[in-house]
Amino acid sequence: MRKYRIAILGATGAVGQEMMKLLEERAFPVEELRLLASPRSVGLEMSFCGKPHYVQLADENAFEGMDIVLGAVENDIAMALLPHAVSGGAIVIDNSSAYRLKEDVPLVVPEINGEDVLWHKGIIANPNCTTIIAAMAVAGIHRISPVTHMIASSYQAVSGAGVEGIRELEAQIKALEAGEQVECKTFTYQIAYNLIPQIGGFDEVGYTSEEMKLQNEGRRILHAPNLSVTCTCVRVPVMRSHSVSVSIETETPVDLAAARDAIASFPGCKLVDDPANKLYPTPLDTSDQDLVFVGRVRSSLSSESGGISLWCCGDQIRKGAATNAIQIAEELIKQGVL
Amino acid sequence: MRKYRIAILGATGAVGQEMMKLLEERAFPVEELRLLASPRSVGLEMSFCGKPHYVQLADENAFEGMDIVLGAVENDIAMALLPHAVSGGAIVIDNSSAYRLKEDVPLVVPEINGEDVLWHKGIIANPNCTTIIAAMAVAGIHRISPVTHMIASSYQAVSGAGVEGIRELEAQIKALEAGEQVECKTFTYQIAYNLIPQIGGFDEVGYTSEEMKLQNEGRRILHAPNLSVTCTCVRVPVMRSHSVSVSIETETPVDLAAARDAIASFPGCKLVDDPANKLYPTPLDTSDQDLVFVGRVRSSLSSESGGISLWCCGDQIRKGAATNAIQIAEELIKQGVL
Repeated sequence: MRKYRIAILGATGAVGQEMMKLLEERAFPVEELRLLASPRSVGLEMSFCGKPHYVQLADENAFEGMDIVLGAVENDIAMALLPHAVSGGAIVIDNSSAYRLKEDVPLVVPEINGEDVLWHKGIIANPNCTTIIAAMAVAGIHRISPVTHMIASSYQAVSGAGVEGIRELEAQIKALEAGEQVECKTFTYQIAYNLIPQIGGFDEVGYTSEEMKLQNEGRRILHAPNLSVTCTCVRVPVMRSHSVSVSIETETPVDLAAARDAIASFPGCKLVDDPANKLYPTPLDTSDQDLVFVGRVRSSLSSESGGISLWCCGDQIRKGAATNAIQIAEELIKQGVL
Repeated sequence: MRKYRIAILGATGAVGQEMMKLLEERAFPVEELRLLASPRSVGLEMSFCGKPHYVQLADENAFEGMDIVLGAVENDIAMALLPHAVSGGAIVIDNSSAYRLKEDVPLVVPEINGEDVLWHKGIIANPNCTTIIAAMAVAGIHRISPVTHMIASSYQAVSGAGVEGIRELEAQIKALEAGEQVECKTFTYQIAYNLIPQIGGFDEVGYTSEEMKLQNEGRRILHAPNLSVTCTCVRVPVMRSHSVSVSIETETPVDLAAARDAIASFPGCKLVDDPANKLYPTPLDTSDQDLVFVGRVRSSLSSESGGISLWCCGDQIRKGAATNAIQIAEELIKQGVL
């Protein structure tokens, strides 16, 4: 079996580290793993499959000889460096939002639109975490009848802002216990025992960049160019796993039992929906694993066209980022592209 | 000026204590304050306007001579005792859900339907906390064009489950820091760093009792018998103040600027909506005060009939319960009923 030379750009970040963990966990056929990061991390020792690996400088020449480059950096660095990976012959799977809406870049959740990897031109984009989780939750229903409208309210964990987000929540909890002043660096306001209804910057009509991703990326993943989404993204004092309250309308009404079956049988989803026994997804249950849990599936009471509402949770660092990226690499192999 | 003899049934609970605090804070004309509770609290000293008051036994004969009885107990006790208060000549303002949907009992948020106190037959019901906050947020728009459909996702503080809810979150945070097992008594699952998408029991179509209150109570408060609401209620690790993400449709489209003006000028509401300066409501900002803060007001992208989405926060122990009850008493005086 062929093995692959893989680079992780941004190997020291939360998503980069999770990618490394997942390559090992999923026994991905790795010939060589190259860890790339900014100058301050160069030389840092990290362990992969029991062997020490040393972080190398992420620059234009860092991708030589690589088959796959996994991008786990911010947009500006992605755009500055990843084109060099492509011209060097690697296939790039990028977790930034820089390429997600480019027409010639597939935006892929393998369980939903895995076939889109076939038309890549060097870069495949990994979607936004909240979008992946919500799209996974509705994709089974979408196959019965296309989703046309969605109203979503998110409950997003602090780790969505990286390791710094977790540290800030922990530090604030400790400061409050000690009766000290709370410091806000990563988040604009106190997040301990609070909620912040802003993730990303605002556009001119009052939506944040994070909120628009559900519509703009959702359309590309679900192949639903007319899908319209009203989204409200809220940061909550949860460490890990994003949750989304979702109400959808479909082209034609979908029977509730059929919707539940579609979710239960959709790869990567787990139906956790037994109200009588108080069973529904919680973010704690979905952390550190790869499935998107879906529950509270019911008919929308405010819909005149058979709308369905549900609640879903998923680990946004795994299925929402690192797992999905590795799954794209696996899909490339499965489809014979690599 | 006339003064009134007032009893608080359930004076030792979170809402009862807040009612006492508010009677003093708002300089309500109190002739006599009688504090009523269960046998285990009898004799307990509580301070009102600088004077000691002793808790008396809540029984059938406890309401003699009272003008106003404020109910802050569970449904079963409310139903067992409050009819005796009415037959004794008092006007009852009850915070339980026992009477809220009775046709001959007005369900009142004074800023919205204060005139409904006029047709009381002894009992006036105080609405559910989340319903009050969401109804206040949309009431200004509702006066321009009636709200017909609402999709709401709530983010509800642990104090909604009383003082026990706060203690449980605090205890769980401490247990986790000490590496100890988390105990769950008040909430079914761990609430520290977690979310629980269930408040109240489930009905046969998958909605919780709390979720149905927004529709059933909302209809009565807003005088909108056909209002349909899809609601998802979620407990979040916030100490105090509930938040709600709301999307509405109105009979005819409401201009966004007009909607904002209507919210800003609605009594009891405060428009906090300046995205460019990162100003929007957070539950921390709305705690320990009476206004419902409304922000993130924008056109719904998924609406084909001019829908509006918004985010609102309010202190559910104050405006969501105790303040609203005292305001009902004030309305009774203003309308000449008392």
